[in-house]
Amino acid sequence: MRKKAVVLLSGGLDSATTLYWAYKRGFRCYSLVFDYAQRHRREIYSALKISSSIKAEVTVIKLSFPWKGSSLLDKKKKIPIKISRSIPSTYVPARNSIFLSIACGFAETIKASYVFFGANVIDYSGYPDCRPDFIKKFEEAINMGMKIKEKIKIRAPLLKMPKEEIVRLSVKLGVPLEYTWSCYRGGKKPCGKCPSCRIRREAFEKTGIQDPLEK
Amino acid sequence: MRKKAVVLLSGGLDSATTLYWAYKRGFRCYSLVFDYAQRHRREIYSALKISSSIKAEVTVIKLSFPWKGSSLLDKKKKIPIKISRSIPSTYVPARNSIFLSIACGFAETIKASYVFFGANVIDYSGYPDCRPDFIKKFEEAINMGMKIKEKIKIRAPLLKMPKEEIVRLSVKLGVPLEYTWSCYRGGKKPCGKCPSCRIRREAFEKTGIQDPLEK
Repeated sequence: MRKKAVVLLSGGLDSATTLYWAYKRGFRCYSLVFDYAQRHRREIYSALKISSSIKAEVTVIKLSFPWKGSSLLDKKKKIPIKISRSIPSTYVPARNSIFLSIACGFAETIKASYVFFGANVIDYSGYPDCRPDFIKKFEEAINMGMKIKEKIKIRAPLLKMPKEEIVRLSVKLGVPLEYTWSCYRGGKKPCGKCPSCRIRREAFEKTGIQDPLEK
Repeated sequence: MRKKAVVLLSGGLDSATTLYWAYKRGFRCYSLVFDYAQRHRREIYSALKISSSIKAEVTVIKLSFPWKGSSLLDKKKKIPIKISRSIPSTYVPARNSIFLSIACGFAETIKASYVFFGANVIDYSGYPDCRPDFIKKFEEAINMGMKIKEKIKIRAPLLKMPKEEIVRLSVKLGVPLEYTWSCYRGGKKPCGKCPSCRIRREAFEKTGIQDPLEK
């Protein structure tokens, strides 16, 4: 029987590649998708399409964060156009702690002992909840509060991979890149200007691979 | 200016006493209440009444857990009538991790550096996410993923207090006990049979104080 894994799936390049990575390694994948009134809610449709491409079960969780400080949630705030070296306005307080907690609870329920997510080195500076130290400590903590005897392992396989390597890996794994969505704005096409678009474009350019969203 | 605190408030005896404890110590309290389709959803009304009795701001968060294993969520399952020495069927996977994560995110947003919750020694055996070790480790972990510079302190002031002491403390602090709700069943009156009712009744009996809900 295949081992089960819960995969946090936003619909972006990193989480889609993480899902395929786990799938190709033989895990039976359960995608966990969050609808938290993010501006780029259309990423949820991407997550559904990507999941169905490998017949992964999908669970969408609706969650209303009780805060408006983030430009990713508040349409009155401007999405930055520069890549920040400090914590950007798109930061959502405790987001990964919340998502990982729910993922671990879900994992326990379906008897999965792995939780995968797409945290990546590029995000370190900006998002403290993507740092390796945080992930390790959080894994220790959450397991102390669980019923399950086999510890839940939280893994971020792309953690130390440069973005262009992720692009190459995604192609190698057969990720349907045309379904992915990275842009922080929720438009019909990627804006090309937000940090997420810029990082993605730069990575594709480095590899010489054509981004199907740019066609 | 009073220090701000986020208080996880279920509407039960312990969390109501915790709220009053923080309030009487001078904190400006922000109640955080979860509507997670629990059977005893009526506890939410208790939480609202208790909060308004000290003019605490209240935020109710709707959250759908993607699992049905717990008898606290699934009406087809029986609520136990015995007090369990192991993990009871009312256990909800990762509940405190999820609630505390959201509370810490909220705390960061409103610039509160304290999060209080009503975990108690009585719950140790049954709920691993009420244990002191878990709370300490979780506090360490979540702070590594936050933006805020001042560490968020997670405190459970009733952690080592026997239940009858909590009853005495609640009276001393002036908690409106008539508003509190402990019963796992969501009936009009407490069922008197579930573990939560039994523990409450025993505690009141030990103190000789009349439980207003039993009148």
